[in-house]
Parts: sequence; structure tokens; C-alpha cells
Amino acid sequence: MAEKEKLTIVMFSGDLDRALAGFILATTGASMGMEVSMFFTFWGLNIIKKNEGSIRSKGLMRKMLNFMNRGGTKRLKLSKFNMLGLGTWMMKRLMKDVNMPSIGEFITMAHQMGVKLIACTTTMGVMGIAEDSFCSEVDGIAGAAYFLGEARQSKVALFI
Amino acid sequence: MAEKEKLTIVMFSGDLDRALAGFILATTGASMGMEVSMFFTFWGLNIIKKNEGSIRSKGLMRKMLNFMNRGGTKRLKLSKFNMLGLGTWMMKRLMKDVNMPSIGEFITMAHQMGVKLIACTTTMGVMGIAEDSFCSEVDGIAGAAYFLGEARQSKVALFI
Amino acid sequence: MAEKEKLTIVMFSGDLDRALAGFILATTGASMGMEVSMFFTFWGLNIIKKNEGSIRSKGLMRKMLNFMNRGGTKRLKLSKFNMLGLGTWMMKRLMKDVNMPSIGEFITMAHQMGVKLIACTTTMGVMGIAEDSFCSEVDGIAGAAYFLGEARQSKVALFI
Repeated sequence: MAEKEKLTIVMFSGDLDRALAGFILATTGASMGMEVSMFFTFWGLNIIKKNEGSIRSKGLMRKMLNFMNRGGTKRLKLSKFNMLGLGTWMMKRLMKDVNMPSIGEFITMAHQMGVKLIACTTTMGVMGIAEDSFCSEVDGIAGAAYFLGEARQSKVALFI
Repeated sequence: MAEKEKLTIVMFSGDLDRALAGFILATTGASMGMEVSMFFTFWGLNIIKKNEGSIRSKGLMRKMLNFMNRGGTKRLKLSKFNMLGLGTWMMKRLMKDVNMPSIGEFITMAHQMGVKLIACTTTMGVMGIAEDSFCSEVDGIAGAAYFLGEARQSKVALFI
Repeated sequence: MAEKEKLTIVMFSGDLDRALAGFILATTGASMGMEVSMFFTFWGLNIIKKNEGSIRSKGLMRKMLNFMNRGGTKRLKLSKFNMLGLGTWMMKRLMKDVNMPSIGEFITMAHQMGVKLIACTTTMGVMGIAEDSFCSEVDGIAGAAYFLGEARQSKVALFI
């Protein structure tokens, strides 16, 4: 049996618009029969954080960072035209209007389609994010070597 | 005859500097004999909008979005040091100074060199952008599956 | 002997967080036995500028640009939560805390591991940056054609 073609995406950004671009590509790839991995790092970790739950991290600075940088799909903002939340609210309405899933729904959908969601251990360490901060759809945590291992076997590797 | 090597670029950003990077790579690739596609999505759609013409979109929110997010090559701004337009004006002067084409000229040049310019249907739908908003050099509209189909046949695929 | 697999990275951004992502990938790739090139362009040129030294560029506008856009590893800022420098300072502390190298240390380390650091001639010309502005670890300068030549031989090419 032929191996599946791979698509590997680095989700660096936590902006709503870039998250959306990532999930549209990931779910489209999966529906075309590709084997898709999404590798969440830096601000991208915010996308896969739970919307609820308390913030636990060691040390004052990491507590502060994780307070400001709370994350969760409901807190993602547009990279442009956020306008104190108005632009982001508008974008979410427009997405609903054309029956596009929300980021939370995209995470569930991607997971059900077999897209692997991986959190980057290195940036989790720097930012003091514990593994139980992530939503249940996340498949595991891994480092840059894992990503490069996947990427070099991939037909397409993108940094978003 | 050997098939041409492909270069596929996602133009996600509508910033002047990222647009410039995209077109420098696209036209260089074409001059090296590569088959180049540029796939414009989200804010990147602004790059290929006409500079003139009225804004037509259905619904109040889409009208508002397209008013703020007017687009056209002459309205692109730097991602940094825009400084109410001063930085962007300076960058355009510096480009002219070294005989670098403007984005409008790059679009024409890319088109003449056979670079395919494609607009993303999905984000056109969300943002309420009609096909006739785009400049005449745009070759067509297509979705994420088209992009991935091109990307997986490409030697190089970049997300800008 | 089999040829080494290549990893080619465009460093477009001069943000501390994106620079960090780039160097983590580059040094990890090198440690996995890949042949790694980093191609610095636009704001990414700031990463490889010397921290000290006078600013030399011809013409008033280029002088102004290079004054505002001074560069050097110590001047890089976070793309988010910079907060007049507080967020950037915090991030550097957090990096130190987990024994992550600073960007300056990453440049030295990457160079010692054989990662090629190349500055983009085209954007150096537009922005008026002289070759002697760069730190000694930079291996040379080259244009977009050089980058595409490397990228199309690469297993993985990323635009950061």
C-alpha cells in the first residue's frame, strides 16, 4: 500500500485569522487523503489551550505571562482590525454567516479527521505552560526535532 | 520534455513588505524557469484588488469590513514603521530609488512572465469580496484544495 | 556518500520570537545532520546586524530608516506583549531561566554547527544597509535566485 502524502504545519501565531488559515488547510488536506500534523508553538499554543480552567504555572513571571496571554479558542483575536474586539466579533459573525466552523469546532473536526495536534515542548518550557492546559483533542507534546522529522517526510510544510 | 519545477506561494498578508517579498520571489522563480502560482487569501486579497472602483458587498458588516479594508496596491502599508503613512511613503521612495518596481508594476510583470495569480474563494466568501473587485491580471479563483494540489507537486511552497 | 538533506529558512521578520523559532529549527536541523541555510531579508536583516558600530548609509532617508531600524540582537522585540520593553525583557529572563541561548549566542552556535547565514542583497540595497553592518558570523550575501536555488534542493523550506 502506498504511503499517504504528508502535510505538516507549524502554528506559530495565535491570531484568529492565521489559526483559521491553518485549520482550513489542515482539514482540506485531511479530506484529500493527506496525513496532516499541526505543530503548535509560541503564541500558537494559545489556540489549543482550554477555554476554562485555572492558570497554573511556576514563578511570578510565568504566572503574569499566562495571565496576559490566557489563550483558548474564544480569546483569539484578529491580527488586524481587532478594534478593541469589534473587528474580531465581526469576523466571527461573518464566519458563522457562511457556515464556517469556529476555531473550537475546527479543532474537534480536525481531530476527528485524524489530523495530529502536537504542542511544542520547548516553548511550553519557556512560557511555563503545563500539559494539562491543553484541550483534550491534543495528541501529545514533542520538540523541534520531531517537527523536522515530520517535515522532511512531507510533501508540503508550512510555517503559519 | 521535462516538467517545470513548481513554486507555490500563499499570500496571506496584505502588508507592503510581505507583498514585495512574495513578488520578488515569484518573478525570480519565473525568470529561473519555474512554474509559479501565487494564491491570495485573507488580507492578501487586498494586494490584487483594483485601486479604483466602488465597493460592492452584501450586508452591512461586509460593507463596513470592505470599507476599512479597502485594498488595492496603492493602499498597502508596511507591517512596521508605517508611522501614519510616513514610513510606507519612505519605503516606496527607496524602492523607486533602486529601480525596484512598485507592487502594481510587479503584478503586471508577474502576469506577463506567466505567474498564475489565484484568489481564494473561501476567504472571498467570508469577507464578502466579489470576483470583479480584482485587477485584470488575476487568472481565476479557487479553494484550499486547489492550493494543496499545486503545493504537493511543488519543489517549494511558502506561506507569506 | 549520500548527500545531506537540506533545510532552508527565510528570516523575514526581525521579531525576537520569530528569530528564536528560526534559530531553534536551524540548530536542531544541524544537530540532526541536515545542511541548513538561513536567508535574512527585510526586517530579518536586523537580527544579524552588529550590536555596536556606527550607522553608515547613503542619503537622508536611508540614514533615517537605519536610525529607527537600528537592529542588532539586543534590540529585537517581541511581536506581541512588548509593552514598552517589559514583555521583551521578561521573555529574555524566561529564556535564560530554562537555559535557552540568547539570539546572540544562537548566532554563534549556529555558525559553529555549520549553518550558513546569508544576507539578502536586494533588501540590503533598498534599505541602504552596507555589508560591514553585519556580525562576523554572516557567511555572505546573495539574492533571491540563490535562495530559490537552495530551496528547490531542500527537503524543507520555511518562510518565517
